[in-house]
Amino acid sequence: MIGTELGDWRRTIYSNQLDPSMDGKEVVVMGWISSVRDHGNLVFVLLNDKEGQMQITAKAGVCPDEIKESLVKLKEQSTIAVKGVVKPSAKAPRGVEISPSELRVFSIVEKIAPFQWQTKTVPNIDTRLELRAIDLRRNILQHIFKMRSLVLKSIRDYLYEKEFLEVNTPKMIATATEGGAALFPIFYYNKEAFLAQSPQLYKEQLTLSFEKIFEIAPIFRAEASRTNRHLSEAISIDLEEAFSDYNDVMSHVENIIKKSIKTVKDYCESTKTTDYIIPEIPEKIPQYTYTELVDRMQKAGATTKWGDDLYPSQLKKINLSGFYFIKDWPLAPKPFYVKAKGDDQKISESFDLMFGDLELSSGSTRIEKRMELEERMKNKGFKLDAFDYHLRVFDYGVPPHAGCGIGLERLMMALTGTENVRDATFYPRDVDRLTP
Amino acid sequence: MIGTELGDWRRTIYSNQLDPSMDGKEVVVMGWISSVRDHGNLVFVLLNDKEGQMQITAKAGVCPDEIKESLVKLKEQSTIAVKGVVKPSAKAPRGVEISPSELRVFSIVEKIAPFQWQTKTVPNIDTRLELRAIDLRRNILQHIFKMRSLVLKSIRDYLYEKEFLEVNTPKMIATATEGGAALFPIFYYNKEAFLAQSPQLYKEQLTLSFEKIFEIAPIFRAEASRTNRHLSEAISIDLEEAFSDYNDVMSHVENIIKKSIKTVKDYCESTKTTDYIIPEIPEKIPQYTYTELVDRMQKAGATTKWGDDLYPSQLKKINLSGFYFIKDWPLAPKPFYVKAKGDDQKISESFDLMFGDLELSSGSTRIEKRMELEERMKNKGFKLDAFDYHLRVFDYGVPPHAGCGIGLERLMMALTGTENVRDATFYPRDVDRLTP
Repeated sequence: MIGTELGDWRRTIYSNQLDPSMDGKEVVVMGWISSVRDHGNLVFVLLNDKEGQMQITAKAGVCPDEIKESLVKLKEQSTIAVKGVVKPSAKAPRGVEISPSELRVFSIVEKIAPFQWQTKTVPNIDTRLELRAIDLRRNILQHIFKMRSLVLKSIRDYLYEKEFLEVNTPKMIATATEGGAALFPIFYYNKEAFLAQSPQLYKEQLTLSFEKIFEIAPIFRAEASRTNRHLSEAISIDLEEAFSDYNDVMSHVENIIKKSIKTVKDYCESTKTTDYIIPEIPEKIPQYTYTELVDRMQKAGATTKWGDDLYPSQLKKINLSGFYFIKDWPLAPKPFYVKAKGDDQKISESFDLMFGDLELSSGSTRIEKRMELEERMKNKGFKLDAFDYHLRVFDYGVPPHAGCGIGLERLMMALTGTENVRDATFYPRDVDRLTP
Repeated sequence: MIGTELGDWRRTIYSNQLDPSMDGKEVVVMGWISSVRDHGNLVFVLLNDKEGQMQITAKAGVCPDEIKESLVKLKEQSTIAVKGVVKPSAKAPRGVEISPSELRVFSIVEKIAPFQWQTKTVPNIDTRLELRAIDLRRNILQHIFKMRSLVLKSIRDYLYEKEFLEVNTPKMIATATEGGAALFPIFYYNKEAFLAQSPQLYKEQLTLSFEKIFEIAPIFRAEASRTNRHLSEAISIDLEEAFSDYNDVMSHVENIIKKSIKTVKDYCESTKTTDYIIPEIPEKIPQYTYTELVDRMQKAGATTKWGDDLYPSQLKKINLSGFYFIKDWPLAPKPFYVKAKGDDQKISESFDLMFGDLELSSGSTRIEKRMELEERMKNKGFKLDAFDYHLRVFDYGVPPHAGCGIGLERLMMALTGTENVRDATFYPRDVDRLTP
């Protein structure tokens, strides 16, 4: 009888730890089947675990018949455990094959997935997303999400080193942060509420209590855009720092980008992966002023006027590539909390971090004085009453502060050359997709 | 003229880096005023930054008159920067005072907060929550949230070390995870959707693709409980592991608890803080079966019957204290994905981690076979169609797996002796509170 339950079996070794010097050693390996080849007296099964691939070789006369017969019948993606003995084998992965003596089959697969785990590109992304958990077994995605986890770790390590405090701010809020557009409404018991499109006002308040804070958490935007770079739910890396301005924040962002590229480079080197287009670590990320770029764009034939947003289609005309900052944006279209640059009420202390024509991060110096903030809000037509919970904090000594948000999924696109933001997201959400 | 803008000033030193050997050194310090004492020719200002407290001493004849006069007028909590010279002073914090030569006042406070920053207990928590950002300046909360950030770091470090992958699962979902109760409905474009009350089904799916995963993220529960231990939005530390059962998960939880206690102990020692009741690091966290405890409770006069939930009021009768596991709960009331213990369909492979009568974590071995899962769902009256996106994954080799969720805020209550879960939450959300 082939067992079907885990019981007291535990994996003793991962595929990447196997090597020919273990000749004769008994091991227990577990994973999912990536191929079965039946040569009659010899059956080769390739088994994948989270660290790689290994070969199970069932040889008639050596391997119990019952096991050999079970293995032959198993379809790709079935999940099993094998107890067996390590033997050197020049042709097998890592020069090792496992000769099975016991088998447990946890999960028998009957169906064939509409895409294969080795495939790099599948024509229709929806086919994949409908079976996302299985799609995520594909090598090309496995690496992206392993790098994503490492990049998150390296960013947190940077922020801890710089003595930022990790915080969590509420995602269910009473008032829109930056106006009423693009919000998901919720029923909060008997009240109307919204999902937070950014932790903006909370993180500003927390500079008063903790000076330097960061949050890595979901943000929610009801933007009906159907593009390769917009999500309805995304992970935002938010930081905010007291007693600093947008230049200090750009310097943090630059350090974070450099560390993240290094993390991805190191991963690809150590796993010998060459499937990704990784940017070079820049010595210094160039900074262009908005005004300077509009000038250049106009000379290149763009229709952009001073004051307009810089759309990818127009930005493309001046062919900026890699990472760069666009700073000193016009003040008027900026949110109410963004500070003017010195006495010039036309320009703001703000920046976007770009990668080619993709916006990765947006930041600014914020207003710390209540009067100034109220003035800006009134000019923008906000009702001050709705923001009383925020404004009252400014009566108690809010420090000068600055901060930014970095889009994690877009950052991963830039770091790996991934073209669709959905492939840097475990279960993407957009205007057409709420499942799985 | 006293400046009011940060401009090109930057802090050169934090309060905790000052010492008498710096005699004569010019420094720039920044922070908020915690007291002003005016002795005519001498004005003492205590200034707090995120690392502690320092003294500014303005002496007539030494300090420019304009600065001395400004300082005298400033109210508590105002935020300022001081350029000045370090002088030894036996009576001042860290044996140092700063003699100011320049001053910038960023934020003048006119109001007096309804509680003081030194106060340990404020009778009405709502008074504090209405001004939460200012409340968080209180020492007693400062420490809790600094420890919270360190505990998060130590938990992530443990999970990275054990090779768990960090994931993010969607918070906007189409179907209720464990039935329809306690969900916040949202408008998702033109569809109805819900806020996720747990990442349960997603993290189970991801064991198929990544084997060992964790997520630290908000969960949303529309429970109208008015208690000191329930929140409508909380941070859940979720982990899920392939090829393991609930015993393996209990072992991770035990390690996490030990590491977390050590983190809190180390923090309190290094900051010489004695305001918190920190549990001892247990050599081994005791494990009691549900059946065993019901027996003991009945003998102690509890009305609890086998099959009932164990309510704090009844659990109290047997006086269990500190951390302990209750395992092998009755299967019937458990969610559909929880596995039976061997062939005994009455008992489940499940556990709760308790601290006294407070539940901190809940975990179990999960079902990995589609037939078994469907059977359980049908018995519970679920419509299988609504779970098609989940069930179809089980056609492609879901491994045996187990996992748990740990409530971060409750963990912090246990680690610090904090009585109200709201004081381990930056901006708590409950049935009565959606602001600030």
